[in-house]
Amino acid sequence: MKTELILYLLDMLGVVVFAVSGALAAGRKQLDLLGVLVIAFVTALGGGTLRDVLLDRSPVFWIQQPDYVLVALTAGLLTVLYTYFFKPPQRALLVADAGGLALVSISGAQIAEAAQLHPLVVILMGTCTGVVGGVIRDVLLVEIPIILRRSNIYATAAIVGIALYLVLKTVGLATGPATLLGMVTIMGLRLAAIIWGLALPVYRLTDQK
Amino acid sequence: MKTELILYLLDMLGVVVFAVSGALAAGRKQLDLLGVLVIAFVTALGGGTLRDVLLDRSPVFWIQQPDYVLVALTAGLLTVLYTYFFKPPQRALLVADAGGLALVSISGAQIAEAAQLHPLVVILMGTCTGVVGGVIRDVLLVEIPIILRRSNIYATAAIVGIALYLVLKTVGLATGPATLLGMVTIMGLRLAAIIWGLALPVYRLTDQK
Amino acid sequence: MKTELILYLLDMLGVVVFAVSGALAAGRKQLDLLGVLVIAFVTALGGGTLRDVLLDRSPVFWIQQPDYVLVALTAGLLTVLYTYFFKPPQRALLVADAGGLALVSISGAQIAEAAQLHPLVVILMGTCTGVVGGVIRDVLLVEIPIILRRSNIYATAAIVGIALYLVLKTVGLATGPATLLGMVTIMGLRLAAIIWGLALPVYRLTDQK
Repeated sequence: MKTELILYLLDMLGVVVFAVSGALAAGRKQLDLLGVLVIAFVTALGGGTLRDVLLDRSPVFWIQQPDYVLVALTAGLLTVLYTYFFKPPQRALLVADAGGLALVSISGAQIAEAAQLHPLVVILMGTCTGVVGGVIRDVLLVEIPIILRRSNIYATAAIVGIALYLVLKTVGLATGPATLLGMVTIMGLRLAAIIWGLALPVYRLTDQK
Repeated sequence: MKTELILYLLDMLGVVVFAVSGALAAGRKQLDLLGVLVIAFVTALGGGTLRDVLLDRSPVFWIQQPDYVLVALTAGLLTVLYTYFFKPPQRALLVADAGGLALVSISGAQIAEAAQLHPLVVILMGTCTGVVGGVIRDVLLVEIPIILRRSNIYATAAIVGIALYLVLKTVGLATGPATLLGMVTIMGLRLAAIIWGLALPVYRLTDQK
Repeated sequence: MKTELILYLLDMLGVVVFAVSGALAAGRKQLDLLGVLVIAFVTALGGGTLRDVLLDRSPVFWIQQPDYVLVALTAGLLTVLYTYFFKPPQRALLVADAGGLALVSISGAQIAEAAQLHPLVVILMGTCTGVVGGVIRDVLLVEIPIILRRSNIYATAAIVGIALYLVLKTVGLATGPATLLGMVTIMGLRLAAIIWGLALPVYRLTDQK
């Protein structure tokens, strides 16, 4: 009972963090109020939606539990109100976003795991849950999705953390500690990448060889 | 019997209007003929497709009734032919598009309503049916979707009209008049917004506070 | 038994070809390594994924058979390695891509055909399988999808080839030769278009009449 409540609250925390980051990104593109709410919505719920559609989970999670919708829209609206008066706390948001990524990716992976899918698919579905909302946000704002570009250990952190979680469980660790270690890894990798500027190498194709 | 025929014809009218608007948008981007038909198709049928996928209605409506596909493609083709000889009637098209939005949004909402979903989800699904085709069109043409930007009471009109429809039914009105009033509201709001330049406020995020 | 193996290998060949073309397109946009793999993945598997979602085939083919994922990612990775040392063989790739289009479009159409759908839907689903991966690639790289623009008989080749396949089967030809003729038509049309610069006319909408 208590654990379920904690998991629910953590899940909602991930939704809030992603909705806020979506609203802030929208604010740089001069959208109208409705546009901001749409971007907050798709950033927060887009990844889980694609996961549910690909896994044919019916109905999609926020159709079954519309409080996800309410939370995402409210978070978007409060972000607009807040930033009329105050500067958004960029550093706190980066930390919160890393936490949201950890939370949402691992819980997305566990849904695929519960459906007894191949480990590769579990990693893909967890990463999808964590990052696809941001991809849709960037596509709607006509930018090359940030997760595809350089200077960004983001999806990579999710992949490594989920893989570690699966390895730990295969080795016999209980779900609780494996979940925790997976999440800490994702958040730690992401924050380390921000602090020390870690990035994957860029692939440049030139016509001269 | 007669009512069903009228509903069917109205539905097809919405498809035609959206296909025409898609083809015209494509004409400003110098696509080839096939590209124009693809854009007409996704503009006309994209919103209902996403609705059916999210609600897991199977098969998607135009797979079950391919006459939707024929109507959308024919409307796109006729638009190309027409505009080789004549100027598109911009004002008539704006009115027709407002009518299409009203029609398609309310009928999309009624599908979600029939599935006994939460009112918030009914509003989302109706609005999705009405506006997502245009969003996909804009994404394929690499523009920030018009419904997200300023100077545009469009999705907002759909939201207000569907909400009114739901309130009227809750209050005890029959489906017929509630549908009519919802549609009139959407079309009226949209046309009023065009005539008097109504728009939602824009959200601008600046770094100075 | 032997036929199935050949079909499986041909299918994988299509995946490889599309993954390579995705990775090369990504290389021109300076993505990081993960971004390249993502683009290779969606280019190779995006079309079939949309087909499966629209037809409500569950689970999506690469979730059921994760070797598709492995093959796509490996092909993307090998492309990156190869092009560090050598120039990509552009001409061979164009031929291979035409072959991939033929293969993937016809086999996608056959899936819709097996579900006894309307011929129009069979053509749409086959073409979707063949070209939508490239559309998603272009959307993620913020370019107007190449299949919508001029100078490109690509989707058109798929449409013609699938239609021919369906006509031949209606006329009484066995599946084997009809498949072969459909594929040869697609590949031939595409290669002829490249060699002789065939293209559909462009639709230009001007404000003067």
